[in-house]
Amino acid sequence: MKKILNDPSNLVPEMVSGMVASYPQYIRQIPDTLAVVRNDRAFNEKHAPKVGVVSGGGSGHEPLHMGFVGQGMLTAAVPGQVFTSPTPDQIYAAVKAADQGKGVLLIVKNYSGDVMNFDMAKDLASIDDIKVESIVVDDDVAVEDSLYTQGRRGVAGTVLVEKIVGAAAEAGLDLAALVKLGKAVIAQTKTIGVALHAATVPEVGHPGFELGPDEMEYGVGIHNEPGYKREKMVPSAALAKELLGKIGGHFDGGVAGKKFTVLVNGFGATPLGEQFVFANDVLEQLKDAKADVIFTKVGNYVTSLDMTGLSLTLLQMQDDQWLDYLNAPAATIGWGDSRNER
Amino acid sequence: MKKILNDPSNLVPEMVSGMVASYPQYIRQIPDTLAVVRNDRAFNEKHAPKVGVVSGGGSGHEPLHMGFVGQGMLTAAVPGQVFTSPTPDQIYAAVKAADQGKGVLLIVKNYSGDVMNFDMAKDLASIDDIKVESIVVDDDVAVEDSLYTQGRRGVAGTVLVEKIVGAAAEAGLDLAALVKLGKAVIAQTKTIGVALHAATVPEVGHPGFELGPDEMEYGVGIHNEPGYKREKMVPSAALAKELLGKIGGHFDGGVAGKKFTVLVNGFGATPLGEQFVFANDVLEQLKDAKADVIFTKVGNYVTSLDMTGLSLTLLQMQDDQWLDYLNAPAATIGWGDSRNER
Repeated sequence: MKKILNDPSNLVPEMVSGMVASYPQYIRQIPDTLAVVRNDRAFNEKHAPKVGVVSGGGSGHEPLHMGFVGQGMLTAAVPGQVFTSPTPDQIYAAVKAADQGKGVLLIVKNYSGDVMNFDMAKDLASIDDIKVESIVVDDDVAVEDSLYTQGRRGVAGTVLVEKIVGAAAEAGLDLAALVKLGKAVIAQTKTIGVALHAATVPEVGHPGFELGPDEMEYGVGIHNEPGYKREKMVPSAALAKELLGKIGGHFDGGVAGKKFTVLVNGFGATPLGEQFVFANDVLEQLKDAKADVIFTKVGNYVTSLDMTGLSLTLLQMQDDQWLDYLNAPAATIGWGDSRNER
Repeated sequence: MKKILNDPSNLVPEMVSGMVASYPQYIRQIPDTLAVVRNDRAFNEKHAPKVGVVSGGGSGHEPLHMGFVGQGMLTAAVPGQVFTSPTPDQIYAAVKAADQGKGVLLIVKNYSGDVMNFDMAKDLASIDDIKVESIVVDDDVAVEDSLYTQGRRGVAGTVLVEKIVGAAAEAGLDLAALVKLGKAVIAQTKTIGVALHAATVPEVGHPGFELGPDEMEYGVGIHNEPGYKREKMVPSAALAKELLGKIGGHFDGGVAGKKFTVLVNGFGATPLGEQFVFANDVLEQLKDAKADVIFTKVGNYVTSLDMTGLSLTLLQMQDDQWLDYLNAPAATIGWGDSRNER
């Protein structure tokens, strides 16, 4: 294992410390936790209370979630150890720090440990009279149930949910409206990932599974969970066809005539150039299929440590407002620029 | 070699096509070239002519340079084939597309082929009465001269030069002032990189050099050029100490009491989490050394295909205006958010 680390067991505290020290204009650490909360002036000076939006989960998926904390996106984020759910007390601390008197929405990826611990945090917060609701992201259509999941896993589509719901919270929607919006977006978000090489958890020291020199795992999870098949490598265009075929089948009546957001998400060790070659194939094929792509993102948003591979997400845009929320400003480490003045 | 590609020899055109199709709000392709130019409304409607800022170089370093084209940063960018200089006619086409009647500044990384071809493009443009000047970035202090370079190589510090000069052009500085500013920034920009694993050029099919399972190459270039030593892996904190010691020695009188921008730049296959662990060590050690870090960026900005490793750049901030230029908005694929309202 070759990694730039000190003590592998200390990766998460050092990483959080590095993020906070590098980008204090966006985030600060919540005392006695690994969680972070917004640190911009609008939040700190409590100008206009909004619903807090909190997410979290195991580390190793950076920039998710801490890199998406900032005005217009998440209010706070809670990292667990690598590929391990954060504890209820840490989530509870993030809820308290994010609450501005308007309640807090939890965005939870669908893993058994995360769902359980976020639920416990919700119970803790209810004692404090903080109104807390949660939504569960389960966008991975590769497999039903998985190693750590009942139902479908929550993967790269999470960043789109966080962006839309975060922008809506910034725009002043109340907790009930945000729950409704988040659930509607999740229902239209479908993802499948492929791995060329598995991720190595630092404390384990070797890849989570072995692939042959010309093999690819289709439908892999972001914690090295198995996918739906393992086959020889194919060219990018054939890969795009396979994934679009699988994902498109989850939209009633296919993709023709519908509006979509497309997310091509690198898993950590796949160069951006390859991601754009793949995006080119995806966008061409969607055009041929008469689908209308109105928003695209390509890059490393929801990674899996040093996994080589990428995922494709399609979000069917059922409401024009969703595009406005995607285009709204987000002052974060990881989302990037938001201007869209054509 | 495991890569997500179609025909390796067609990587660059497909990648450019994917970037333009994914982000038409920022860039469009210049007809009959691989080069891209701004596509935002302010540029297309020619509201207020500014000096054009053009960069380019071999591909494989994405998001550099095309990912930095947009209002507030580059006006146009010219990609060559992988690790290969763009041709003079392509650079000339970008100069013509970028020119708004106020002249064009070329930002060139110091490689013999790039310097030669950008010079030829400058000659071509002079026939058209377009005023063109160029500045050469040579921030890599690891070695003097190298495989493809006389003097020092141009590496990750290039993105800081592009951001500062691009913001200054957007603010209305004239060509002579931009040349002066660019040269002043370049003189204060110092970088060293380390590799844990070499990059694989797709058309070659194997890594550019071999490292043992516990070895690291110190001072590596972004085209697999050799560095200044090859040694056993060390922890992140020891690596930070080595690089800071080397780089600090290039600032007269050391780093104490001076203001710096710090860039931790991933080479393509190094997870963001590791980059933040390293940034944490760098920022702590600079604090201990009484240096004042006033701006930090951590992420993949100037990559080397699938190389594992990262580089550290220190830019001594000699003018308060430079920080304003770094913080100014940049509507690009790769620079990220620019808000800094603390």
